[in-house]
Amino acid sequence: MGTIVQKYGGTSVASSEHIERVARRVMRRRAAGDDVVVVVSAMGKETDRLVALAAEVDGPDSAANRREMDVLLSTGEQVTIAMLAMTLNKFGCPACSYTGGQVAIVTDDAHTKARILRIDSERMRCDLNAGRVVVVAGFQGRNEAGDITTFGRGGSDTTAVALASALKADECEIYTDVEGVFTTDPRMVEGARCLPAVTFEEMLELASLGSRVLHTRSVELASKYQMPLRVRSSFDDAPGTLITSEEKIRMAGMEQPTISGIALTRDEAKLTVRGVRDIPGVASHILGPISDANIEVDMIVQNVSADGSTDFTFTVSRPDYELAMKLLKNVAKDIEASEVTGDNKIAKLSLVGVGMRSHAGVASRMFRALAEESINIQMISTSEIKISVVIDEKYLELAARTLHSSFALDQEPG
Amino acid sequence: MGTIVQKYGGTSVASSEHIERVARRVMRRRAAGDDVVVVVSAMGKETDRLVALAAEVDGPDSAANRREMDVLLSTGEQVTIAMLAMTLNKFGCPACSYTGGQVAIVTDDAHTKARILRIDSERMRCDLNAGRVVVVAGFQGRNEAGDITTFGRGGSDTTAVALASALKADECEIYTDVEGVFTTDPRMVEGARCLPAVTFEEMLELASLGSRVLHTRSVELASKYQMPLRVRSSFDDAPGTLITSEEKIRMAGMEQPTISGIALTRDEAKLTVRGVRDIPGVASHILGPISDANIEVDMIVQNVSADGSTDFTFTVSRPDYELAMKLLKNVAKDIEASEVTGDNKIAKLSLVGVGMRSHAGVASRMFRALAEESINIQMISTSEIKISVVIDEKYLELAARTLHSSFALDQEPG
Repeated sequence: MGTIVQKYGGTSVASSEHIERVARRVMRRRAAGDDVVVVVSAMGKETDRLVALAAEVDGPDSAANRREMDVLLSTGEQVTIAMLAMTLNKFGCPACSYTGGQVAIVTDDAHTKARILRIDSERMRCDLNAGRVVVVAGFQGRNEAGDITTFGRGGSDTTAVALASALKADECEIYTDVEGVFTTDPRMVEGARCLPAVTFEEMLELASLGSRVLHTRSVELASKYQMPLRVRSSFDDAPGTLITSEEKIRMAGMEQPTISGIALTRDEAKLTVRGVRDIPGVASHILGPISDANIEVDMIVQNVSADGSTDFTFTVSRPDYELAMKLLKNVAKDIEASEVTGDNKIAKLSLVGVGMRSHAGVASRMFRALAEESINIQMISTSEIKISVVIDEKYLELAARTLHSSFALDQEPG
Repeated sequence: MGTIVQKYGGTSVASSEHIERVARRVMRRRAAGDDVVVVVSAMGKETDRLVALAAEVDGPDSAANRREMDVLLSTGEQVTIAMLAMTLNKFGCPACSYTGGQVAIVTDDAHTKARILRIDSERMRCDLNAGRVVVVAGFQGRNEAGDITTFGRGGSDTTAVALASALKADECEIYTDVEGVFTTDPRMVEGARCLPAVTFEEMLELASLGSRVLHTRSVELASKYQMPLRVRSSFDDAPGTLITSEEKIRMAGMEQPTISGIALTRDEAKLTVRGVRDIPGVASHILGPISDANIEVDMIVQNVSADGSTDFTFTVSRPDYELAMKLLKNVAKDIEASEVTGDNKIAKLSLVGVGMRSHAGVASRMFRALAEESINIQMISTSEIKISVVIDEKYLELAARTLHSSFALDQEPG
């Protein structure tokens, strides 16, 4: 007898048949004695349809139009909640649907990327106590004035985690079209395995590094409120991947391996400014124009100075490469750098694992394994639970396979 | 410098190009110095799409599902308000969109056919005072609990009239795909003419008799609050038809003809129970089962009794004919009627005009004109401003043309 929040993404509610399948799954959970709150995304390609409609207007990106964009986009989820609640009612399972504003998910005024300020869970609790399933539109809320707001990418996951926290739910299940979180990209490495559990920190590194199962923001929120998340497929009954604290994983008696997974990011590019004078302020001089142009910088590496000059390298996503190079060449003149070089055929590979903290030698084992395959490492960057390397893009698959077996990720731990 | 409410139906906002045209019309009105509130319907066939989607669920018609139907259908208008507000903003005309619940149109709990209880016009006034156009979703409101409600057929017209009344607007303009209210169906009578003005009462008779320009309910509401309505085309700049009180039409110096128009209704059927004993309660005995089966009865005629028995005739819409006949045959046995007969090839024609009250002889002139064309009158029914006759369907067009010229409806009055 607990409270469960389930979230179903667009592919899981793509048609009325899909919605029936979701309804049956919700009812099985109800039958098991749990109170269920369901968060849904827009059906299939509905959000794309609405975005295309707005594009026909081709209005400027003003505050007024961002407000209207939220009015428009929020209809997508509103259709799904009505469809799911009707289906549940048809099957004899009492259900009631709510828009984000109705439940009341109160946000700030930042239209199209609003942040949740508070949630009033009273109405939901009232429905749950009356034996009803509560169906809530993901991705949306309302500001203090009552205007509709939306959360941007990954918004429905955020809704689910926020509602679960407000309701003090036992678990928040994120249903998607994949089985769970994998040790690495299964399209690239045959032995990739679905992980039974990862920590919030690992998931954050894996999510931000290209394992697009969960949006970073929802993991951050779950971590903040210590809300256990479970990523699982809406197409089978496998348990999926539990994402929770290191402590809870240990308490559950689950083995925590040294390395949980390998995140892969293609479509990167690197830029190097050579012969930069090694004086304070030079880094901000280089990166200022880049960030002014809204280009996101990923890795930044600056090596020790030899004879008062140094080399400065950073990576950007590949579509930003040309613009970044142009900006950098202008800067290079100003700071009297000797040369600007770049490479847009690189990829990033990162080992992630909380076990890394207590196990020395992960880095050297990684570098050795890559060296044995003659894969040259172009850049290295590390954090407490992650080691990232940049390599030539053409070696990405080989590197992934090599490290996946070196660290025995294809085998169950223990 | 007044306040105008404009309502645009589905065909007027069917695409982004249509919406641009609406935006330009709104802006012309703003430029003329008026405050403008715009009420819009769902784009083109959007409501049909949503109804079809709900039909896929095929849930029972329960209170819970009517609530969900409102959540679903209300998204149609919500898409349009965002699109129109974005378009106005793009053209440099500040605009802000609101759902029915947001403005706040508060209704009773009757989902799918809710009635408006009150409107809080403060937020709209605030926007208008700030120089913004207010765009409101038609057809919808919210109940006291904050649940979305819808108004059923003609709901957007109702929204427009209710907002106009709440704002004490100068006029409520209903834009549609026809020029205005015609003297009769222009597809049937070549000389049919757009009327410059009709009274609320005439419009009610014309609307309920098959001139499907305005929904009865919105005319009733306009009449109750004495809010002048103007029906006009969104595809040209003609003034359309003003619908207001008899007094205001007179004050405006407009000539009020004896007969304003001829309403035509095809698809009727009549049923007669013969040889019914002329005793109290027999009418309710006959009509009880009909109304229990939700069949709407239109005209009812019972003639004087001869030797203690009488004939009882009523009309229903043609799709209900078979069922009504079956029910009636059962009743006939119980009340020992001698015979039940019927005819499902009839049509109704009604002369409507407030001038009729002060002009004797309209009926006889009507009957004479029909007789001259050898058109047999099967039933007659009259009200203060209307005379209806039932005739064989095949004579409808001839009868319409004959009366249209007999009463000089093809000529400007005066």
